[in-house]
Amino acid sequence: MSTQGESMPRVGVIMGSSSDWETMQHTADTLEKLGVPYEVEVVSAHRTPDKLFSYAENATQRGLEVIIAGAGGAAHLPGMVAAKTPIPVLGIPVQSKALNGMDSLLSIVQMPAGIPVGTLAIGRAGAVNAALLAASIVANHDEKIRNALNDFRKNQTETVLNHPDPKNPA
Amino acid sequence: MSTQGESMPRVGVIMGSSSDWETMQHTADTLEKLGVPYEVEVVSAHRTPDKLFSYAENATQRGLEVIIAGAGGAAHLPGMVAAKTPIPVLGIPVQSKALNGMDSLLSIVQMPAGIPVGTLAIGRAGAVNAALLAASIVANHDEKIRNALNDFRKNQTETVLNHPDPKNPA
Amino acid sequence: MSTQGESMPRVGVIMGSSSDWETMQHTADTLEKLGVPYEVEVVSAHRTPDKLFSYAENATQRGLEVIIAGAGGAAHLPGMVAAKTPIPVLGIPVQSKALNGMDSLLSIVQMPAGIPVGTLAIGRAGAVNAALLAASIVANHDEKIRNALNDFRKNQTETVLNHPDPKNPA
Amino acid sequence: MSTQGESMPRVGVIMGSSSDWETMQHTADTLEKLGVPYEVEVVSAHRTPDKLFSYAENATQRGLEVIIAGAGGAAHLPGMVAAKTPIPVLGIPVQSKALNGMDSLLSIVQMPAGIPVGTLAIGRAGAVNAALLAASIVANHDEKIRNALNDFRKNQTETVLNHPDPKNPA
Amino acid sequence: MSTQGESMPRVGVIMGSSSDWETMQHTADTLEKLGVPYEVEVVSAHRTPDKLFSYAENATQRGLEVIIAGAGGAAHLPGMVAAKTPIPVLGIPVQSKALNGMDSLLSIVQMPAGIPVGTLAIGRAGAVNAALLAASIVANHDEKIRNALNDFRKNQTETVLNHPDPKNPA
Amino acid sequence: MSTQGESMPRVGVIMGSSSDWETMQHTADTLEKLGVPYEVEVVSAHRTPDKLFSYAENATQRGLEVIIAGAGGAAHLPGMVAAKTPIPVLGIPVQSKALNGMDSLLSIVQMPAGIPVGTLAIGRAGAVNAALLAASIVANHDEKIRNALNDFRKNQTETVLNHPDPKNPA
Amino acid sequence: MSTQGESMPRVGVIMGSSSDWETMQHTADTLEKLGVPYEVEVVSAHRTPDKLFSYAENATQRGLEVIIAGAGGAAHLPGMVAAKTPIPVLGIPVQSKALNGMDSLLSIVQMPAGIPVGTLAIGRAGAVNAALLAASIVANHDEKIRNALNDFRKNQTETVLNHPDPKNPA
Amino acid sequence: MSTQGESMPRVGVIMGSSSDWETMQHTADTLEKLGVPYEVEVVSAHRTPDKLFSYAENATQRGLEVIIAGAGGAAHLPGMVAAKTPIPVLGIPVQSKALNGMDSLLSIVQMPAGIPVGTLAIGRAGAVNAALLAASIVANHDEKIRNALNDFRKNQTETVLNHPDPKNPA
Repeated sequence: MSTQGESMPRVGVIMGSSSDWETMQHTADTLEKLGVPYEVEVVSAHRTPDKLFSYAENATQRGLEVIIAGAGGAAHLPGMVAAKTPIPVLGIPVQSKALNGMDSLLSIVQMPAGIPVGTLAIGRAGAVNAALLAASIVANHDEKIRNALNDFRKNQTETVLNHPDPKNPA
Repeated sequence: MSTQGESMPRVGVIMGSSSDWETMQHTADTLEKLGVPYEVEVVSAHRTPDKLFSYAENATQRGLEVIIAGAGGAAHLPGMVAAKTPIPVLGIPVQSKALNGMDSLLSIVQMPAGIPVGTLAIGRAGAVNAALLAASIVANHDEKIRNALNDFRKNQTETVLNHPDPKNPA
Repeated sequence: MSTQGESMPRVGVIMGSSSDWETMQHTADTLEKLGVPYEVEVVSAHRTPDKLFSYAENATQRGLEVIIAGAGGAAHLPGMVAAKTPIPVLGIPVQSKALNGMDSLLSIVQMPAGIPVGTLAIGRAGAVNAALLAASIVANHDEKIRNALNDFRKNQTETVLNHPDPKNPA
Repeated sequence: MSTQGESMPRVGVIMGSSSDWETMQHTADTLEKLGVPYEVEVVSAHRTPDKLFSYAENATQRGLEVIIAGAGGAAHLPGMVAAKTPIPVLGIPVQSKALNGMDSLLSIVQMPAGIPVGTLAIGRAGAVNAALLAASIVANHDEKIRNALNDFRKNQTETVLNHPDPKNPA
Repeated sequence: MSTQGESMPRVGVIMGSSSDWETMQHTADTLEKLGVPYEVEVVSAHRTPDKLFSYAENATQRGLEVIIAGAGGAAHLPGMVAAKTPIPVLGIPVQSKALNGMDSLLSIVQMPAGIPVGTLAIGRAGAVNAALLAASIVANHDEKIRNALNDFRKNQTETVLNHPDPKNPA
Repeated sequence: MSTQGESMPRVGVIMGSSSDWETMQHTADTLEKLGVPYEVEVVSAHRTPDKLFSYAENATQRGLEVIIAGAGGAAHLPGMVAAKTPIPVLGIPVQSKALNGMDSLLSIVQMPAGIPVGTLAIGRAGAVNAALLAASIVANHDEKIRNALNDFRKNQTETVLNHPDPKNPA
Repeated sequence: MSTQGESMPRVGVIMGSSSDWETMQHTADTLEKLGVPYEVEVVSAHRTPDKLFSYAENATQRGLEVIIAGAGGAAHLPGMVAAKTPIPVLGIPVQSKALNGMDSLLSIVQMPAGIPVGTLAIGRAGAVNAALLAASIVANHDEKIRNALNDFRKNQTETVLNHPDPKNPA
Repeated sequence: MSTQGESMPRVGVIMGSSSDWETMQHTADTLEKLGVPYEVEVVSAHRTPDKLFSYAENATQRGLEVIIAGAGGAAHLPGMVAAKTPIPVLGIPVQSKALNGMDSLLSIVQMPAGIPVGTLAIGRAGAVNAALLAASIVANHDEKIRNALNDFRKNQTETVLNHPDPKNPA
């Protein structure tokens, strides 16, 4: 496991395989930019199901407020984590080789009534956005993160406004 | 607008058309069961864009902690609301006539990096789950709702456990 | 739970919801025709994850030789059972409301390397065929079931051969 | 902003990100060939929603006769512009990374009754064709552009007619 | 042929089969509401290719300013009309039986560079919107129709604003 | 088997199941209208593979000039017939329950280089067209059928031409 | 135009663009191997519609027995040729850039009842197979080509039989 | 043919073309790791249908307990083998060029009721998993292979557990 941030992790970032890190590092980077304490760990639904269960079961008492899970193909990690914890779970469909992440997306988003997973876009965009959504959840009761999030958003707006000519991008 | 619950609404439930109510009532019903104060309103991204903007802009100061937006087809409502407010936005792809909600799903979930929408399943399951996810977000700092959510989950687990024979369903 | 057949169940038939019974009864019917002892039970990956784990963990010692799991939407049941038992697991994608079972199919069949699920067709055809495939696995070391399977196949061949005119079906 | 052509722009070409320029330059090139005055600008539906609104609101009084909007993924730009202006809006689905532009296409074309977006093909072909369609709209009351368009079409017909042997292309 | 409106038709509405009328009548109805003179006719690309060619060739001299073509399945009508006339052509993908209009949509929208078809949504929404887009094209140089279009849009906005409660729809 | 027409069958019409007759009767009806002698028979690739082989092997010596095969789902009949006979084989994807014939279509049309199947549309349209295509193949050396085919085509053209008003269909 | 073979062309091979030659050369190569006289020509449905019509209209009197048409995207060429000639038309869906030929396939295969196109696989396999199918049509009344086709098939069977070990391919 | 392992092959691994070996070698490698005796052979459903039939017919008497068949595109090999043998047949959809294996998957998995094929994931993951599933079938009555399979699974679990940090993969 690898914990980052100034204090106890508030967001758990897990993924089904270390090969998902290429995508999931964008979640970590974005949480870091926003000052949200987080931890990063490989937890495989299929190869380490018991670890998945204990990770999810202990999330609340360990102080996690949100879990972000990324997985590809028949992506069961986000849904199974959600089945074992009442805290918000966000899912990132990692782009798969054959079906470009359409399998990952449907495996994550089409959860039956009763156990929700807030699903983001396939790949890098989803990885960034999972961090932003987690930050907005934490920000509901944390002014510092709320300010960081507002700054992040103001920044990206200004970057676009300051570079209206597509031939001269930022 | 229609506000329900014992106090100031904490979750805003909006939809692109009154015809989406058939789906979105499951969001309202579930929030009600969990005791989460909410309001319900039709806000069309395409027919009432100005209302959409003012709704989203005022969300924070009106005390909303989560916005749940349902829409079908080229479903722009959740993403445009998210573009105008920093609070968490959840999206429900309403099942469309021709493409069964695949268009709604992709229009909602495939947001570019920068503005997240936590997307739930197409149709009724997504509507129920948006309420559950919103409740879990609110529950992070509300013991009463946390308990209600835990009871809801315990209940549904026991219902399944008590009816293991598919020929004798609950 | 509901156990059927003259002796200890050799095939476990589970499904994510009692609403899947409409599909899964074709598995039960076919196993019955072939004289394969089986049991039937609702085990929800998302609502009863702990039961799913204990069911899969105990499968071997309870004498099950094959597990057949049916589920719809983000169908995690077959894959998670396979993650917890070394015996063959067969998956049936139940036809879902919005996406006609394409989500169920991809969620079941696209398992990552390491944990296999032998996947059958969406819906009724898959339910019948899971029973036939399970029977063929059991038949490798059971002459009686092998004979029953051979008779079943001979029978269906003769039914087609005896009714070559599509205007006068069997 | 970047305005090109001999006079006041009559077609506004906008895109959600400067990375869309690779596609959208074909729109600009084609308008230039046809002598249609146009302007080019980055307007992001999600990162600069207020600019999107003011751009669309001012289109009529600024003399724009057509707006061409290109975007990828959950592509909301064309539809939201159309929600805010009565002049014709054409949409170009930019090819997205994971889903090859199928998400962009459905997000743009599947607009609900009431607010139309004339949608072109995914990628470069759509970018060229949006310019041609915009020119044909302007040409209805502009003989010079009508002639330029007719020449363009005559030209491309003759190029094909003059090179009937695929082994000796133009 | 059937011509409607106070004067010479300015919009030609054609369809591949009389069975498409169920969809295409919404185009006619909307043009009528907006006071846009139009004509309606069955022109089959596959069964009456010569009529298709002469219809398209004569469009300009007959005073048509826009052609709206609806077709389903391998929908070649809009693209072939566009190949034979320089005036704007809009295409409506009629919902097909097996593939729900996905075939119609791709056959219409994926035109190669050189010949554009402005494509609307599958089915009724697309039929309404083709009329609105045609009206907006005509309105560029017709104040009466511009006013009618603005009224139509104002009206639909107010209808939504006046019925914010989804339980009490308009 | 059921043979129809004034003489030795020249076209063999086979299908995987008698339930395909609802679709395939349109092939038979159309061949009958055109005076093409044909036979109709159920031949299942999966349940009667030996019959499929002997049917295909004997096709040439029995005087068949074309074989039309309809099947649904994992539709192997047309391709396997084509693997066993050098005469032209046409395939009709029968509309399947879950996937609407997309599985049938891909199973038939995506044949590897070496063994062709001329594939028609999903369902009824494909069934009619397989008969027309078979007739056009036979017509290459049969003036009577060529004339019948030309009359059929002339007829359908005139039917459309004579009913231009979609509100007054033929 | 480019005619090849010892005598008057019996098969016309056309394509929408010279860029399709990469695919369509496999049709030409295969016809050449089989000794079927053919011609090759670029005929664009959209850029040279009149040439398409005259090509199809003159096919019969010029002695063509089969037309093979390849096109990509909104592929209208095969269907429009079929609308203008009673001889058999075969269609090859060229692999398109964004949608990998799924658009090409649906645009070609989903023809409405009345005008058939015998459709082959997307890309190279379809190009080879169109030649084989055309040869089998011509072979019905040409012993030399029938023999060449039988030899071709015998050859490819023996190549596989002689190289059963995948590690030692032919 | 190429036989590997210490004794008579118990699993037959076949593929439609030697080009499938790139995928199917992962099946062979995995069987080897588990000590399951197997043989490998190219058997083409379309180019060598007779060999396919004799291979399947002789499987039982040659002592095969499972057949694993890989094929791409219109993949008929697994289903046709299953039609000719009562032993379990597993299918691997090889990733195809144009449609990324979606055609392969549907052609294999969507078998009609009566003849089952246990289908694995598209490409390499499916190839590995077919070997694991075959091993689990054989392991039901073979303690040595059961132990090897359990070791394999334990190993992969420990590899994940020992490398929880995605930045330091195994």
